[in-house]
Amino acid sequence: MALSWKNENDAASGWGGRRWVFSAGFTPSRSTGFEPDFTSRNTLCLLNTGNEPACVELTVYYEDAEPVGPYEILVDSQRVKHQRINDLIDPEAVRLDRPYGLMVESDKPVVAQLYYLDSRNGNLAVSHLNPLPLP
Amino acid sequence: MALSWKNENDAASGWGGRRWVFSAGFTPSRSTGFEPDFTSRNTLCLLNTGNEPACVELTVYYEDAEPVGPYEILVDSQRVKHQRINDLIDPEAVRLDRPYGLMVESDKPVVAQLYYLDSRNGNLAVSHLNPLPLP
Amino acid sequence: MALSWKNENDAASGWGGRRWVFSAGFTPSRSTGFEPDFTSRNTLCLLNTGNEPACVELTVYYEDAEPVGPYEILVDSQRVKHQRINDLIDPEAVRLDRPYGLMVESDKPVVAQLYYLDSRNGNLAVSHLNPLPLP
Amino acid sequence: MALSWKNENDAASGWGGRRWVFSAGFTPSRSTGFEPDFTSRNTLCLLNTGNEPACVELTVYYEDAEPVGPYEILVDSQRVKHQRINDLIDPEAVRLDRPYGLMVESDKPVVAQLYYLDSRNGNLAVSHLNPLPLP
Repeated sequence: MALSWKNENDAASGWGGRRWVFSAGFTPSRSTGFEPDFTSRNTLCLLNTGNEPACVELTVYYEDAEPVGPYEILVDSQRVKHQRINDLIDPEAVRLDRPYGLMVESDKPVVAQLYYLDSRNGNLAVSHLNPLPLP
Repeated sequence: MALSWKNENDAASGWGGRRWVFSAGFTPSRSTGFEPDFTSRNTLCLLNTGNEPACVELTVYYEDAEPVGPYEILVDSQRVKHQRINDLIDPEAVRLDRPYGLMVESDKPVVAQLYYLDSRNGNLAVSHLNPLPLP
Repeated sequence: MALSWKNENDAASGWGGRRWVFSAGFTPSRSTGFEPDFTSRNTLCLLNTGNEPACVELTVYYEDAEPVGPYEILVDSQRVKHQRINDLIDPEAVRLDRPYGLMVESDKPVVAQLYYLDSRNGNLAVSHLNPLPLP
Repeated sequence: MALSWKNENDAASGWGGRRWVFSAGFTPSRSTGFEPDFTSRNTLCLLNTGNEPACVELTVYYEDAEPVGPYEILVDSQRVKHQRINDLIDPEAVRLDRPYGLMVESDKPVVAQLYYLDSRNGNLAVSHLNPLPLP
């Protein structure tokens, strides 16, 4: 058996999946260094290799509050979109300094990965994380 | 074939799995910078998207001692829970400066990821890690 | 069911897959420290365990421009090849300071992982990332 | 379809797999800070949850030389083993400052993850990486 992703077999459809989830989200409120390059953040990295735009909806889960969403992110066809989580303000700003989880749902197949940059204490720390794929 | 997770198909059940394992656990005893933000640590990031609370049991494997557990972690429905491993004290404090592995078992489907922060030598280093999913 | 990769069952064929994708690519233009060790970069790490050379083709997706490719990378049999993305110049240099995604396609099975080094602000930050496997 | 690992269904067998591969190995020769904590390194993190010891064999692939191995690592039952790659000397020391790939083969199911610590330029940088699972 091959471990792999099946795309939808028509010309317009891209590679990837429609549902992804991360449990390890976090956005520090403090940063050091010049903005926006060194602003502490989570960035959701989306790739749409298909021939139609993808509409991605994000739901944010907290430790002590009801889930908030959907946040809408448009990813053009044949384009990548690196969306900073702390730039999302509708329906409300994603909370800083609070643990969160992210559910990512797309109307077209996309690839999703998460980038973390932390500049709180004067140096740069970075990390990347894959989501759990969902059916 | 789609690579994905099957959740249990009833309204109360969330996304994810019931068994996860990490082999790369470690908690340094030393830290620099103010606490608790910059305390060196492993943090187990759990997300329960279901409609019922999940009870997660953790077993810790060491290099030179018998496995210890279960450590119990409750994750409320529709909530994330970021649990620092070094805050676990029952049945005993998880050992510092010692390599360990983690077996994560839940009575409800959850998503699990591991976060590592190391501030031992005056700067911040971070990393994220996915577990191996088990049946 | 075992989660695993099926290689092609003949003597010449190596382990891995033929199509991989990353959505979180980025190459900073600035670096500190001596070159080339501390040059900020993405490095695509390819392993060919087979008995024949593998020809890998890379396509780069941007946020605001058409995809560019193919970039060709040869990986000898029984060899690893760590290819810095910022060293790729044909058909054009991969753009710096711009988010990108990477589609990796090989004529033979290979293993692909991505390494990120960021030395922009005077210290070293590193991260590793697995791709999404495609059929 | 559930994405998961099937263990061998007898009492003595642990969780995980018998073949894993990493393409992104690297061990810097330089370090700063006190040893052995801050020695730059790759550490292979193995967990054997079974009731019998596991014998793990490692093969190292280079960019410009024949593969070297097997390196043997014993993992006791119900134990984790964090093996620094730069401590492996038989059949020969793993080369420093050279890209490498790792094939991990075990006679019993184990879990394998890779840790990277880089202290070359005075600060600490860390990362974790999962392998590609093989059949």
